[in-house]
Amino acid sequence: MGDYQVTNVQQDALGAVQLELGNPNTLALRRPFDPLAHDLESTFRLTRFADLKGRGCKVPQEVLNQLVEGLQQDYNNSGDEHSHFMHMATPRIGIGLDCSVTPLRHGGLCLVQTTDFFYPLVDDPYMMGKIACANVLSDLYAMGVTECDNMLMLLAVSTKMTEKERDVVIPLIMRGFKDSALEAGTSVNGGQTVVNPWCTIGGVATTVCQPNEYIVPDNAVVGDVLVLTKPLGTQVAVNAHQWLDQPERWNRIKLVVSEEDVRKAYHRAMDSMARLNRIASRLMHKYNAHGATDITGFGLLGHAQTLASHQKNEVSFVIHNLPVIAKMAAVAKACGNMFQLLQGHSAETSGGLLICLPREQAAAYCKDIEKQEGYQAWIIGIVEKGNRSARIIDKPRVIEVPAKE
Amino acid sequence: MGDYQVTNVQQDALGAVQLELGNPNTLALRRPFDPLAHDLESTFRLTRFADLKGRGCKVPQEVLNQLVEGLQQDYNNSGDEHSHFMHMATPRIGIGLDCSVTPLRHGGLCLVQTTDFFYPLVDDPYMMGKIACANVLSDLYAMGVTECDNMLMLLAVSTKMTEKERDVVIPLIMRGFKDSALEAGTSVNGGQTVVNPWCTIGGVATTVCQPNEYIVPDNAVVGDVLVLTKPLGTQVAVNAHQWLDQPERWNRIKLVVSEEDVRKAYHRAMDSMARLNRIASRLMHKYNAHGATDITGFGLLGHAQTLASHQKNEVSFVIHNLPVIAKMAAVAKACGNMFQLLQGHSAETSGGLLICLPREQAAAYCKDIEKQEGYQAWIIGIVEKGNRSARIIDKPRVIEVPAKE
Repeated sequence: MGDYQVTNVQQDALGAVQLELGNPNTLALRRPFDPLAHDLESTFRLTRFADLKGRGCKVPQEVLNQLVEGLQQDYNNSGDEHSHFMHMATPRIGIGLDCSVTPLRHGGLCLVQTTDFFYPLVDDPYMMGKIACANVLSDLYAMGVTECDNMLMLLAVSTKMTEKERDVVIPLIMRGFKDSALEAGTSVNGGQTVVNPWCTIGGVATTVCQPNEYIVPDNAVVGDVLVLTKPLGTQVAVNAHQWLDQPERWNRIKLVVSEEDVRKAYHRAMDSMARLNRIASRLMHKYNAHGATDITGFGLLGHAQTLASHQKNEVSFVIHNLPVIAKMAAVAKACGNMFQLLQGHSAETSGGLLICLPREQAAAYCKDIEKQEGYQAWIIGIVEKGNRSARIIDKPRVIEVPAKE
Repeated sequence: MGDYQVTNVQQDALGAVQLELGNPNTLALRRPFDPLAHDLESTFRLTRFADLKGRGCKVPQEVLNQLVEGLQQDYNNSGDEHSHFMHMATPRIGIGLDCSVTPLRHGGLCLVQTTDFFYPLVDDPYMMGKIACANVLSDLYAMGVTECDNMLMLLAVSTKMTEKERDVVIPLIMRGFKDSALEAGTSVNGGQTVVNPWCTIGGVATTVCQPNEYIVPDNAVVGDVLVLTKPLGTQVAVNAHQWLDQPERWNRIKLVVSEEDVRKAYHRAMDSMARLNRIASRLMHKYNAHGATDITGFGLLGHAQTLASHQKNEVSFVIHNLPVIAKMAAVAKACGNMFQLLQGHSAETSGGLLICLPREQAAAYCKDIEKQEGYQAWIIGIVEKGNRSARIIDKPRVIEVPAKE
């Protein structure tokens, strides 16, 4: 018998916690997570329950591309009817993109699935849950799939947490994950919870849909423009925030940024990471997007390159503008080569969609998203004739994106 | 962009590994995994890359039952149309059973999903991959679902492995997982790979099916019998095998068992855990099973109790016979109360199906499974009138199950 009940149990355990805390949503959303308000030590930091933050485990992009090509080959040669069919009917789907797409036995339907899990990168457990959920769903949204039929939650509780810490933190993470799923119009039925040295959080998102519900991300044409729907710099912001506790680190950046700036950037980053790419995805259909991906562990340029490499036409992507959470470009510069933010290599968590749009539709797309959500989107580059690669120009324009008031 | 490519990459990396090793399937399947044959230290043990083995993280059954009840309540009261519909259309499904079942927007179809992951419990990486895959699929099979539409692989590579160890072990685990999926008539499209202090391995199994393809496990009637399709004692066997390296542990059991006995039991356990419950599941339809579950982390009695508690009728389960891998009952006894094997509490990994069958069909079921697979199944108990509980009689008959020759 599967252990998915364990997840359900702990979700439910929220009932009791709620009674003690009043409304935990309000508590966690309206003001920063305060360990003392939960009877934890003031020094409690969720991010200390793993040595890696966010997507710490990266396989070098070159290795990845090389091997994914190999696998494609392998599939085409396998004689496996299933995968063969997949490549016939829906070429280029399933490999190297954001979701797996599997044709089903029933009425031309497809199974679209994605999974992701990582380590805590913010100290607010409720927000961590929301971010993890938004991050998993983002892979569906990148393919223009706006409905999710079911989610599973995958959770590992750190063996290093005290019982008290666990009882406070885990229900809040689960509540955040569940609330985000509800916001996305889906729900969490199932999952698995284990104990592990590091705390990990993630999930699975699954949709069954008609082929016309997703957008194959391979249709960019010369003259398209590239739109980005969230600012860069989430990794810089969460690191800078942790350095507030570490004087030797803080000294390296305090000349370019104030404590207040860092706190603002951190909250802007949390807000951004927890935001769903669902409306961005829905509008891809309305404005005839030619394909998209979401920006996560390989940074803007890494994902732009992967998207470019999957195009049917001989195109390349040229990026001119870098929207960055306010002051984080300066922080990244002050850290030398550590983040490579302006080179496009800084990892993001639950980043924005990078979308190829017909030039004449892009401005309307950006206006629409701002009207519906109150968040800016930016035209950051163009699609030229080329060899299916992506680059950032020599001196890109950095757009400082302030925290929403 | 999701990290699922990472999985694919490493699956593909097998290509190269195969060239070096000849045929790794033959190598790993025909004789025990030999670290030296892979240029690893002779003392290399996969099971040392986690402090817990198999399903080490158990929530006490009482706590679980109590809280699952609460969640059911929560769902019914939630006003969430989706889950509400679920409980209307398919009562009792989705909570406390082996899979989540979610009604879809398309043509009366349901999404049936399960996920599971755990820590290495055998030292042969290829077999570990097969066991992990069989274990995930087993939750579908317990519901009579014999077709799996897609699998995702979830893998964490231990930070403590050397690069060499990683490059040998991970491709073998992935190959085992993939081979087992192929054997089950499905394939692995997607997944996630991260680094973590402990090695973990698991996956997600998903099926889209008509409601008549699954068997709601709540139809046991007085007079049914209980059939078990795999022997108990896998946890005892894998532990005893590890104790061969630990003299102080070995001394506790060497009076009741020889080294040869332990090695045989270990191989019998690996073989049993890697065996799919698929034919057992298919035959549930043929012989009109009234419901089933699979035996894993909570042991025979734990899962029997959960199954009993979900019955529509006022029944209880009484278990008379305990088929146990040869000598493992003696080992368990020699260890005092540690395993509680004969009390039904010893955890199993990828255990058998426990099936409620009409009395007149049960013998034919067992004969059929033996004919098709060459493995015995056993009638181990009966369904009586009662209060939806399960028990083992005072002096159950232990059936010694020898290794297949």
